Amino acid sequence: MSKITALDTYDVRFPTSRELDGSDAMNPDPDYSAAYVVMRTDQPSLAGYGLAFTIGRGNDVQKAAIDALNHHVAGLDLDEVIDDLGGFARRLIGDSQLRWLGPEKGVMHMAIGAVVNAAWDLAARAAGKPLWRFIADMTPEQIVATIDFRYLTDALTPEEALTMLHAAAAGKARRLAQLLQEGYPAYTTSPGWLGYSDEKMQRLAREAVAAGFRTIKLKVGMNVEDDVRRCRLARATVGPDIGIAVDANQRWDVPDAIAWLRHLAEFRLAWVEEPTSPDDVLGHAAIRHAVAPVPISTGEHTQNRVMFKQLFQANAVDLIQIDAARVGGVNENLAIMLLAAKFGVRVFPHAGGVGLCELVQHLAMADFVAISGNKDDRAIEFVDHLHEHFVDPVVIANGCYIAPSAPGFSAQMRTDSVAQYVYPEGPAWCMPVDTAKA
Amino acid sequence: MSKITALDTYDVRFPTSRELDGSDAMNPDPDYSAAYVVMRTDQPSLAGYGLAFTIGRGNDVQKAAIDALNHHVAGLDLDEVIDDLGGFARRLIGDSQLRWLGPEKGVMHMAIGAVVNAAWDLAARAAGKPLWRFIADMTPEQIVATIDFRYLTDALTPEEALTMLHAAAAGKARRLAQLLQEGYPAYTTSPGWLGYSDEKMQRLAREAVAAGFRTIKLKVGMNVEDDVRRCRLARATVGPDIGIAVDANQRWDVPDAIAWLRHLAEFRLAWVEEPTSPDDVLGHAAIRHAVAPVPISTGEHTQNRVMFKQLFQANAVDLIQIDAARVGGVNENLAIMLLAAKFGVRVFPHAGGVGLCELVQHLAMADFVAISGNKDDRAIEFVDHLHEHFVDPVVIANGCYIAPSAPGFSAQMRTDSVAQYVYPEGPAWCMPVDTAKA
Repeated sequence: MSKITALDTYDVRFPTSRELDGSDAMNPDPDYSAAYVVMRTDQPSLAGYGLAFTIGRGNDVQKAAIDALNHHVAGLDLDEVIDDLGGFARRLIGDSQLRWLGPEKGVMHMAIGAVVNAAWDLAARAAGKPLWRFIADMTPEQIVATIDFRYLTDALTPEEALTMLHAAAAGKARRLAQLLQEGYPAYTTSPGWLGYSDEKMQRLAREAVAAGFRTIKLKVGMNVEDDVRRCRLARATVGPDIGIAVDANQRWDVPDAIAWLRHLAEFRLAWVEEPTSPDDVLGHAAIRHAVAPVPISTGEHTQNRVMFKQLFQANAVDLIQIDAARVGGVNENLAIMLLAAKFGVRVFPHAGGVGLCELVQHLAMADFVAISGNKDDRAIEFVDHLHEHFVDPVVIANGCYIAPSAPGFSAQMRTDSVAQYVYPEGPAWCMPVDTAKA
Repeated sequence: MSKITALDTYDVRFPTSRELDGSDAMNPDPDYSAAYVVMRTDQPSLAGYGLAFTIGRGNDVQKAAIDALNHHVAGLDLDEVIDDLGGFARRLIGDSQLRWLGPEKGVMHMAIGAVVNAAWDLAARAAGKPLWRFIADMTPEQIVATIDFRYLTDALTPEEALTMLHAAAAGKARRLAQLLQEGYPAYTTSPGWLGYSDEKMQRLAREAVAAGFRTIKLKVGMNVEDDVRRCRLARATVGPDIGIAVDANQRWDVPDAIAWLRHLAEFRLAWVEEPTSPDDVLGHAAIRHAVAPVPISTGEHTQNRVMFKQLFQANAVDLIQIDAARVGGVNENLAIMLLAAKFGVRVFPHAGGVGLCELVQHLAMADFVAISGNKDDRAIEFVDHLHEHFVDPVVIANGCYIAPSAPGFSAQMRTDSVAQYVYPEGPAWCMPVDTAKA
């Protein structure tokens, strides 16, 4: 009987702040980082990989939180984990002492998400399937058994979820073939970072359209005149048929958001992302009502399924971002995608960062095949950074994510990348001596 | 010019699980713990003390999060901190890289709260005043300058807060004298832990009433028949004039809470605390509406001012608990108490744990003198555990907290207690060798 032997963790940081890649109104100088976890087994060729994404400082705290889960994992039978991924996640979330640190939010919940995702990666590898396919091949009963419905039953019961999944099962084979042929739509944020000049933004926007993307996203929220100018330039650059979304990264209070967005309404935005605090369900509802029909969204910082449930109950959003590494792993994202499907809300997964594109494509593709049945009215974010550090990087063709075929969740980092960027001892972080001071 | 030299941190844990003190429906075996922080200065006799309360495992993660803030603090001028406690807190909360780990929730936010509270302790000590008095002696303008109104202005603007504080200033001197004479009402949870027998609960309830407490609180949520029996026994024990509150510690989904509470309505409960997820604003509103007039409350796990704002906006609660060590420090609790005063919601601070009684009494007393002007329609929780480890422990007389007179925030732990209970190397954690195995 195979055993899980340990969680090995690594503090991996990329010095992205040197180029202002990833700069926005709230995050002027991120160093994209991963608290990276390898779930080892007693089979040298079989391990599970997961990560929590951070933007630099605090990645060590995130790593310590993953280490705090080691005692729940080391020594478990491999089959016990992969045959009951719901029970595995519930044991981590249910640790009553660790639960005090959240509950189900922030550092500790992201740590649980990284470990739970590593277990799904391991299960998919053991089955020889990419994760999206592993999920798509599960029965409705198996999917429902992985989900923690605690605090959801006023909006979605296990019985309702089963009914939805059974209804979706009819078209699975057709959609699976369609996904393999067409891929899954992507949109790109690469042109839109706040630290870029107008010229760089326009050049990258042109390149994005030429590469087949149908939507681009710009960061906003520092200065309204700049935002109006950038939106106008972007619209002139991409023409009338390409979607332009904007992302304020939580910059505004509710009254500020309403006033600011009136200046941007003329650009027929595809959506406005994170106008205010991710915790402010009622604030999003108030903004959406005031600026209608401008579509409002949030989600990359939405801490758990309870907050998503309320965003839907309050009619606070037109669409959501999900994040593969913010909530408690695949299980909780399945719950969120089921809730979104029930409430008729479209999902535009958050990606970029470190490995987020690699991870979230699997969730969106599983949603298309097994849950919502839709993909052409939505898109996965794409940012062309840092993919070279992954063993099975995403493949984009004509503005679409191509369905991964390698077994697992695509979260495995290259060994040489981990060695190069491990913080603070990796060579990437040993800066040259300032000769002026010598 | 004096400097702050360092944050020293300690992982202090008390083995409370051995006696089931603190047991409830979600936390069967807590080891009450503190990630304890000492803000050192270059004056040997002057330091600030703060803590994040946890219940055991994960206290090391909490300590690591406080350590991650050291670079914001070490080397600062003392006067720069104590003259601008608002700016100090905003710099910690505004660290864009660390902010990703929340934002403003969970482990990282509790760490910020511990450090911010240590700065307030330091400021009050430097002024030679207990913290409640230090706050009460601030001008309305000074209080408002400490508060981060971001994400609040749709419910409370700085101008409104100023108006409220100026209106309250009139009666300050009278209320200060009243507080010194009468103390501040307390209620006690000591009888109500779920692990206690009926006999122990009844004995402790009798003792509580004899000691002058006007309200007791029982833990509920494991088994409805047990809860009905315990409420009936408690009511028979304390008579009709003593308040009985119950606390479900987040045990129920929304429909469960509604069904369960119909069984308890006959006991005229003072309030029902944490019926469901602390994140579920709309769920609390639905429960409150369904079981009215049973009073509903939450707050000890409410992560920040944005969630409290929504609880008030949604009419989701009749009263709230505030916690001195869950949110981002004194500044954020001032914001929450101002919001509560504006919305007319009574505050029953959460205490118990490690040092929470010591801390929160200062906030409630400052609220009475300088903000809400009320104390006799509310009460601070009291649990008679672990006070012996503090240099300036709370004093209770005739069911009231006596106003502290020593300078500071009462969070300083005894040096010998820290040495005894530091984890894992302290003598309290070096268990006797099991001789049966020898």
